[in-house]
Amino acid sequence: MRSHYCGQLNETMVDQTVTLCGWVHRRRDHGGVIFLDMRDRDGIAQVVVDPDTAEAFANADRARSEYVLRISGRVRLRPEGTQNPNMPTGLIEVLAKDVEVLNTAATPPFQLDEHGKVGEEVRLKYRYIDLRRPEMIDKLRLRSRISHSVRAYLEGQGFLDIETPVLTRATPEGARDYLVPSRTHPGSFFALPQSPQLFKQLLMVSGFDRYYQIAKCFRDEDLRADRQPEFTQIDLEASFVEEEDIMAITESMVRNLFKEVLEVELPEFPRMPYAEAMQRFGSDKPDLRIPLELTDVDDLMKDVDFKVFSGPANADDGRVAALKVKGGASLSRKEIDEYTKFVGIYGARGLAWIKVNERAKGLEGLQSPIVKFMEGVVEQLLDRVGAEDGDIIFFGADKTRIVNEALGALRVRLGEDLELYTAEWAPLWVVDFPMFEDDGSARLQALHHPFTAPSCDVETLKANPAEALSRAYDMVLNGTELGGGSIRIHDQAMQQTVLEVLGIDEEEAREKFGFLLDALQYGAPPHGGLAFGLDRLVMLMSGARTIREVIAFPKTQSAACLMTDAPGEVSAEQLKELNIRLRQKAKAETAGE
Amino acid sequence: MRSHYCGQLNETMVDQTVTLCGWVHRRRDHGGVIFLDMRDRDGIAQVVVDPDTAEAFANADRARSEYVLRISGRVRLRPEGTQNPNMPTGLIEVLAKDVEVLNTAATPPFQLDEHGKVGEEVRLKYRYIDLRRPEMIDKLRLRSRISHSVRAYLEGQGFLDIETPVLTRATPEGARDYLVPSRTHPGSFFALPQSPQLFKQLLMVSGFDRYYQIAKCFRDEDLRADRQPEFTQIDLEASFVEEEDIMAITESMVRNLFKEVLEVELPEFPRMPYAEAMQRFGSDKPDLRIPLELTDVDDLMKDVDFKVFSGPANADDGRVAALKVKGGASLSRKEIDEYTKFVGIYGARGLAWIKVNERAKGLEGLQSPIVKFMEGVVEQLLDRVGAEDGDIIFFGADKTRIVNEALGALRVRLGEDLELYTAEWAPLWVVDFPMFEDDGSARLQALHHPFTAPSCDVETLKANPAEALSRAYDMVLNGTELGGGSIRIHDQAMQQTVLEVLGIDEEEAREKFGFLLDALQYGAPPHGGLAFGLDRLVMLMSGARTIREVIAFPKTQSAACLMTDAPGEVSAEQLKELNIRLRQKAKAETAGE
Repeated sequence: MRSHYCGQLNETMVDQTVTLCGWVHRRRDHGGVIFLDMRDRDGIAQVVVDPDTAEAFANADRARSEYVLRISGRVRLRPEGTQNPNMPTGLIEVLAKDVEVLNTAATPPFQLDEHGKVGEEVRLKYRYIDLRRPEMIDKLRLRSRISHSVRAYLEGQGFLDIETPVLTRATPEGARDYLVPSRTHPGSFFALPQSPQLFKQLLMVSGFDRYYQIAKCFRDEDLRADRQPEFTQIDLEASFVEEEDIMAITESMVRNLFKEVLEVELPEFPRMPYAEAMQRFGSDKPDLRIPLELTDVDDLMKDVDFKVFSGPANADDGRVAALKVKGGASLSRKEIDEYTKFVGIYGARGLAWIKVNERAKGLEGLQSPIVKFMEGVVEQLLDRVGAEDGDIIFFGADKTRIVNEALGALRVRLGEDLELYTAEWAPLWVVDFPMFEDDGSARLQALHHPFTAPSCDVETLKANPAEALSRAYDMVLNGTELGGGSIRIHDQAMQQTVLEVLGIDEEEAREKFGFLLDALQYGAPPHGGLAFGLDRLVMLMSGARTIREVIAFPKTQSAACLMTDAPGEVSAEQLKELNIRLRQKAKAETAGE
Repeated sequence: MRSHYCGQLNETMVDQTVTLCGWVHRRRDHGGVIFLDMRDRDGIAQVVVDPDTAEAFANADRARSEYVLRISGRVRLRPEGTQNPNMPTGLIEVLAKDVEVLNTAATPPFQLDEHGKVGEEVRLKYRYIDLRRPEMIDKLRLRSRISHSVRAYLEGQGFLDIETPVLTRATPEGARDYLVPSRTHPGSFFALPQSPQLFKQLLMVSGFDRYYQIAKCFRDEDLRADRQPEFTQIDLEASFVEEEDIMAITESMVRNLFKEVLEVELPEFPRMPYAEAMQRFGSDKPDLRIPLELTDVDDLMKDVDFKVFSGPANADDGRVAALKVKGGASLSRKEIDEYTKFVGIYGARGLAWIKVNERAKGLEGLQSPIVKFMEGVVEQLLDRVGAEDGDIIFFGADKTRIVNEALGALRVRLGEDLELYTAEWAPLWVVDFPMFEDDGSARLQALHHPFTAPSCDVETLKANPAEALSRAYDMVLNGTELGGGSIRIHDQAMQQTVLEVLGIDEEEAREKFGFLLDALQYGAPPHGGLAFGLDRLVMLMSGARTIREVIAFPKTQSAACLMTDAPGEVSAEQLKELNIRLRQKAKAETAGE
């Protein structure tokens, strides 16, 4: 029906006759002539309708914002002085010969240009209008290009695209599983997969050698921190590989992706052990664009006459760390109060600081509520953090976990507020993760999942599980974990040992993933893989501020779709077929709606 | 870890040192030497392990069927007389230098070579073993190539890959929906989508212009006829298009697919109106490889003295049709009885026939239980079907629907039994479907879905809905519907009219798809699309006999996964969180298991 997309027109087409199809983005009447800005997914073109073409003019005259038109006409240069150099099609316009109204449009709930004036709720309710905004179309187009680039790369590397089930096994204790009642098996449920982990390992046991899938995954959790109940993973797994193989393939994939889609040449991906990342940045996904680091000062603070510091400095699970910010002495009291509140979110009970006004003056040159307690060590401290005049030093002193989280977050916040970025893109690999974490409960917990291989042998693992490192690796970009993976356990004895350390007894193991344990018996190859969060990758690459901007039809933080009004009520008949009923409380609430 | 896949080795590599990783497919000891057939996803290579390489020999000696080995050695030509021309690697073998056991394997529940000896149930339970069979790997590899070819083609045509939600709106009356209870909205449910239909139409309203997705869809129905609860669609939609545009794009896509993946040049896709397909083949998805056709003989049978024929011949909704089979006079009585039983499945109460032994002899030359009733018309009949000596003519006489289904199925069955195929591939488009079907209930039903556009205007539709044709089209290949689609309604008045004809009142319409009706108000472009069943396409292209062979982890006919034992029980705790409880009956059954 069209000859060109609106955005394709340019000055090389002058005098050509073109046919456009699209929406009326703006309409102006000027000097007896109608100007229509016609919009389609490729851009906007200006159309001029003259009263001389009577039928076209009458139709253009009817047209309102968001009407759907088909327009034929001749491309011509815009008159001198009316060009718009900010528009790709700004040098030309189309003089209409025919204007056909393909569909009318009611006045939309908001004008695209004015989407900022309505709340996100309205935009989500009328998502099909909101998606008309060129930025939104561009983001989803970028997403499509990203998927395509990733697929093409992996196909080229011999990965097979294999679909794994969405209706999978529900397990007792499967917290955060979305459940689906079975009609044919009364009282039984499917679960939607949180990841294709078990299936991809089985595909390796089957000998597929290299698998990938861009797969929908599901997690029923509170949607803090910009998450979605359904999210998309770029999931891959390979056999007869070691860490270096998976890291090389996926690093190339991402490097190729940035080049193809953004024309960006990513810098080297440094490797950083987990312990170093925590020590220097307080985070296992450090944002290396920010030139701030945590410095350990426990040794200096052991004997100071200030319990808040000496306590953690002497405790096994405590840490005292300093974060020097160059030029930060200019921060106001109000700003510091703001940061003190901010670190409180992470459990810090305060935020000590020293402003270095003039080092040459000794204590006199420092401004700080706490420096009086540490006179004997302050010079050593300043030397260690490399303090210069005009700097500020913040302190964290608490349990290690709290210090890391609080100063780690403060570091990122300061980087943002003070615009300290030294690079646009800062990727890295975080490696040498601990196998287990001690969350204070009776059992150790798997830091990744129970199929992650340790980097030691069975005996060493048994002797000192808390110290064991895993063969896991995370790809981090600009402080965001893009993806994580590991070499898996392919050996039964090792799998048994890990389950023992986790306190998962045989019955529980069989109930949860007996089929995988069975499969490991029948000739499992060494294998490993990685899963990327596609939504987050697209968000980073498109510069979006929330994940909802890069998903066509996202859910709200309460896991609802405002457009379709999902989830919704169903009939008693349907529930009966599924052998379930509502609990009284839910019934009452439903009835009350 | 490897230098080559096993299947890659050939005689050009003689004297090269290679490293293989894979599974022991077979092991033979012969003349003091061990022969290992090593298997990976690319094929099988023969490895020879000599006692001279003592460590390698000891390891090979331990190796049993399905052990995982890594082998390095030198490629050499097999000795004269031991070549195997049936194997791609049959001219060479690898003389092992190192043999490393990467993993052992318990004796598998069945040998790959002997999978035919165990039932499908065992193979599904140990799917990860069954998938090791080279045929299974090849089928899933073909599936991956098909997806990739389709994606590359559509990307090239400007289609954007956009993901639509899996957690969608449940509607009252949403029969066959899989439901997902919401934790955050007590008493409410999501539904898994039966197709992305509504969302793709909304994307057109948003202006994405060309959308595609390879999407999981879900239908909770009885799994007769080789269906799966979750299946995959190649789904696409475009704006500012007409039937011809969608048909041209998708026909090119399939043509390109067959060329790329199978090196097959598909013949022309003829167009056939629905009415013609039903009349000539008794089916809306005729298998044009089979040179048999139904011939109407109602006019001849109106006055015969045989109620079974004259009844339907005179009834408005009756049909009498003949199916001539060339050379079929040689069918035995037993075979004819078999076919009589077969058409009974479709509701036919019998299968009348005439064998044409020698036309020149008149009635004498015919053999038939019914010819005596139709002496006056038999010559006309024989002429009309073009009967020659040696033919058989079958008859169907009943309600039109039964005649079409019975003779349509008999036609396909005869084509198979008598190997009548005239071509390997016979594609076509079926077009001009009726808008509605009369299933005998008070309302007309939509033959496709309520968003399908009719080929007439609002007034004509209102005046005689039962006669209206739609702008729908089905792509059929070898008697299988590969995909179907239509131009959609983009006009509100038309949508309103269609809903009225279907007897869907405003409240019901709003409840079911109010958001789409809203969207149509705000400037909906003309649009249309198509959805292919990927599973069935792969099945046809791979020559698989069931859809389960082209799905990595399929469900059984009772919608269960025998490998993971899904669906499974969940805890009372989980159900409570989801605000549901089991009905007593389901509880009792679960407890009894």
